[in-house]
Amino acid sequence: MEFTLTILGVNGAVPAHGRFPTAQYLQIQNHHFLVDCGEGTQMRISDFGVPRNKLNHIFISHLHGDHIFGLPGLLFSFALNGRSTPLHIYSPEGLEAMITAQLMPGGKLPYPLAFHVIPTDTSELIYENKDLTVHTLPLSHRIPTSGFLFREKPFERNIIPEKIQEFGLSIPQIIRVKNGEDLVLESGKTIKNEQLTFPPFQPRSYAFVSDSEYNENLVPLLADVDLLYHETTYCKDSEDKAAATRHSTAEQAATIAKLAAVKTLVTGHYSSRYTELDLFLQEAI
Amino acid sequence: MEFTLTILGVNGAVPAHGRFPTAQYLQIQNHHFLVDCGEGTQMRISDFGVPRNKLNHIFISHLHGDHIFGLPGLLFSFALNGRSTPLHIYSPEGLEAMITAQLMPGGKLPYPLAFHVIPTDTSELIYENKDLTVHTLPLSHRIPTSGFLFREKPFERNIIPEKIQEFGLSIPQIIRVKNGEDLVLESGKTIKNEQLTFPPFQPRSYAFVSDSEYNENLVPLLADVDLLYHETTYCKDSEDKAAATRHSTAEQAATIAKLAAVKTLVTGHYSSRYTELDLFLQEAI
Repeated sequence: MEFTLTILGVNGAVPAHGRFPTAQYLQIQNHHFLVDCGEGTQMRISDFGVPRNKLNHIFISHLHGDHIFGLPGLLFSFALNGRSTPLHIYSPEGLEAMITAQLMPGGKLPYPLAFHVIPTDTSELIYENKDLTVHTLPLSHRIPTSGFLFREKPFERNIIPEKIQEFGLSIPQIIRVKNGEDLVLESGKTIKNEQLTFPPFQPRSYAFVSDSEYNENLVPLLADVDLLYHETTYCKDSEDKAAATRHSTAEQAATIAKLAAVKTLVTGHYSSRYTELDLFLQEAI
Repeated sequence: MEFTLTILGVNGAVPAHGRFPTAQYLQIQNHHFLVDCGEGTQMRISDFGVPRNKLNHIFISHLHGDHIFGLPGLLFSFALNGRSTPLHIYSPEGLEAMITAQLMPGGKLPYPLAFHVIPTDTSELIYENKDLTVHTLPLSHRIPTSGFLFREKPFERNIIPEKIQEFGLSIPQIIRVKNGEDLVLESGKTIKNEQLTFPPFQPRSYAFVSDSEYNENLVPLLADVDLLYHETTYCKDSEDKAAATRHSTAEQAATIAKLAAVKTLVTGHYSSRYTELDLFLQEAI
């Protein structure tokens, strides 16, 4: 069961040193998401060979150019490639007007495009399907900004394949057993669920913390997350600059990760002032 | 005296096979121009190491996304890098509204940005400085589209350096001699201009023919151009597709080049259906 994050761009505001601005491709089971869409995202999708046509939901953290300037190109390429599937974009208010202005004079897209305005000051459920939920994460940046928390829903118990044949289980029986019920045979005999199944897989979670200054209010929202992406535009040498632009340092991101006891931290959105990135790793570990 | 074209992107509508959409960096003497600005232009400028900060004039052929989606990122990066020099953008009508919509909510740019609307149905002078002129070239595409013809102005005659010392020439005398006048010495003796100078350099020219169907009306406008870029989205195998989308084939571009007796033809804007580009060369020669 796939749970894969492909980081398409790791750089902050100005692309540099061959590093592209923020964009991430997230696959959870058979659901495909794009998180932020900096300039060049469609080229990076192509470079990495991730399946662009399976993308039906795009989550945008805020309306700074380095997080959205790849959208018009991606939307147009979808059109030129004959897309007909609806596309949903979730973002803070204002994106629709910006994108609509860009889509002229190319005219109407051949697929439905729906914009969903998300809150940026509370953590709310903004998307759900049978396998997962997406909540917003309120962030502290220069303009309204939101992170995103992707959580798998609890899995059913796993049936032991041999038991299906052994007891000649029907589909309705299998469903009940996977839901945790015991099996009552025609003879009246009861087989305990534990003899038929093994425990469910642990649901996994990914939190995307886009541009934000150090913000401990996030800690309870990130508690025990499996994978946390937290921006680290600067290292400690530029702590003042981080504060002035309302960004985080590597050390600050690591502190949040530690306080929230997340299992793995990934960083990005590096300032173009850093040619090499070793310092970010040194500060974060 | 520099006259250098750097092709930043050669692909048509959808970026593919590592090829970026249309953008060209043109240096003529000490003047720097950008011609079209597809998505990723700022990364390509960085890749090629051409000096972005010397760009004060951008020429946009038409408002299809693959020719303009790199503009917002470039304009923002100029701002983030502290640009204060005015920037001029020449394009068919409609660009200002599209770009202005993208610049929000980042707010006002810290440098003056001027949009100039160009004609697309006549060849007119739209820019001039002491060394060169730029004229529009009316093209035939699905929306109003213009090419651009860059022409150096006639050079002065070149003074033979040794003659300056030999006759003790003053600055005003040098200027008159370079303009072709004979030199009258204090003694009354006249030195013929041909003894003091050698002929001027030949002015050079570059024509950028963006998206356009085959159009022989261009021929007189392109006569004797030194370097012609003519789009060739397709090869002969897709001549119908070229006609339907109002693009050209390699053979058609070569025919225009031949009829106009241009010295060198460069092609581009290749459709992403072509993984390899050899066929374009074979058809054009």
